[in-house]
Amino acid sequence: MTLSPLHHAIGVFDSGVGGLTVLQALRRRLPHRDFVYLGDTARVPYGRKPPEMVIEFATGIADFLCGFGVEGLVVACNTASAVALPALVERAPVPVWGVIDPGVEAATRVTHSGSVGVIGTKGTIGSGAYQRRLEARGLRPWSQACPMLVHVVEEGLAESPEAELLVRQYLSGRPEIDTLILGCTHYPLLRPVIQRAVGESVTLVDSAEVTAETVSANFERPPRVIELGRVTHFVTGDPLAFAHTAAVIGGVDGEIIPLPVAELAGETTRR
Amino acid sequence: MTLSPLHHAIGVFDSGVGGLTVLQALRRRLPHRDFVYLGDTARVPYGRKPPEMVIEFATGIADFLCGFGVEGLVVACNTASAVALPALVERAPVPVWGVIDPGVEAATRVTHSGSVGVIGTKGTIGSGAYQRRLEARGLRPWSQACPMLVHVVEEGLAESPEAELLVRQYLSGRPEIDTLILGCTHYPLLRPVIQRAVGESVTLVDSAEVTAETVSANFERPPRVIELGRVTHFVTGDPLAFAHTAAVIGGVDGEIIPLPVAELAGETTRR
Repeated sequence: MTLSPLHHAIGVFDSGVGGLTVLQALRRRLPHRDFVYLGDTARVPYGRKPPEMVIEFATGIADFLCGFGVEGLVVACNTASAVALPALVERAPVPVWGVIDPGVEAATRVTHSGSVGVIGTKGTIGSGAYQRRLEARGLRPWSQACPMLVHVVEEGLAESPEAELLVRQYLSGRPEIDTLILGCTHYPLLRPVIQRAVGESVTLVDSAEVTAETVSANFERPPRVIELGRVTHFVTGDPLAFAHTAAVIGGVDGEIIPLPVAELAGETTRR
Repeated sequence: MTLSPLHHAIGVFDSGVGGLTVLQALRRRLPHRDFVYLGDTARVPYGRKPPEMVIEFATGIADFLCGFGVEGLVVACNTASAVALPALVERAPVPVWGVIDPGVEAATRVTHSGSVGVIGTKGTIGSGAYQRRLEARGLRPWSQACPMLVHVVEEGLAESPEAELLVRQYLSGRPEIDTLILGCTHYPLLRPVIQRAVGESVTLVDSAEVTAETVSANFERPPRVIELGRVTHFVTGDPLAFAHTAAVIGGVDGEIIPLPVAELAGETTRR
């Protein structure tokens, strides 16, 4: 797979469209850079898959993105960040950032009561990655796996009766919290629904924004931006379905290239 | 891909685990036969994919299954039946059955009022395949796409608060009906929830059972069954996840073989 030369590119990946929220937040901060995004839509969702499988997918994708000479890699997927980050840090020749540590740091800054909620996929919540980090900072975490919410977003139903019903159900058992971490990059698309369900007194931490802050702090920003960077999207599933779902979050600005999963190393080694 | 010799085998396929309901119903009627099942779990769900893509997937799968010398092919997926059946009938060297005509015939037999509901994926309902057939029989169809219900089943949440909430929401706009076609092979797993939502006065038509009746009528049944047939399952996604989800409907009896999607012709031609 060859692309025309990239300019100080950063690689970003997610299991689907959710990571586009991180990509957009990054582009606002680093508009002059090129980005290569990979949405593994043929294998979405990662949330219920076994950790070793998610690690295999993530390392295959990291190898693929690093093949373009990216200068950094952003794991814009909470499930992959929760289970695969150590493997990726060890493997990749460039800095790697996940979305969990920035989210935990942001929650630590904004909470007053110390009672912090986190919602995510079964994989993310089951890994305990958020809960351990929050406890290590002396906070009291409440967590809830929300297996249907990724599907709500991927189906383009972020503003729908289905979304309202499911969000209220998942949040119905929460204790008194003053901060809620959206522990899945799909969830910022559900922000209005979630904010209505918890009320205005609860601060939502959007891992997309805080991760973009962390990552962009590591790259120089030129005083003036002469030319906007270019974004290339690879998708392992249907490009049309990707563009369709991505439209919910403002659409895709850049090329979309279909990529058979077999071209990702993890898949090849299994065959 | 080679298997040890098959005995009067029948091929069955679905986008995921839903078609296992059809497979089980077939095995009860044709216990001596071998079956080859393909669950295209790497590309599930079909319901929101464009028709031409579903046709491509279905023809690739039909070619693969026919390669084992099956004596018949059952499209145990409503979306594929709705959009790809004519293409499959033309292409396959053996008889091909879908799930829609048997469901419509059964509904025609059981309705008294002529007011028949059908629920399915966006693809199935959007195709109008059920509605046209019901109207051609002088019945008054009411239809509702239920995009989240496949995900509920695939997540193993068929008996959950999520399932109750979603089913009641989707059925809330129905007129007075006396018959409801479960127009997706995943939905029989939601049968208890759906029956509670519509009440006992509404007859549910399970396309799995009526399709199995139609298919089995075309094959001879021996007077005594000496030896049970063998089932081989191919899955394009994760075999463990398939087995896990299949456990909801009584589990998988037979081998599960992972099959990279690239080995299905449709995918190969695209590369």
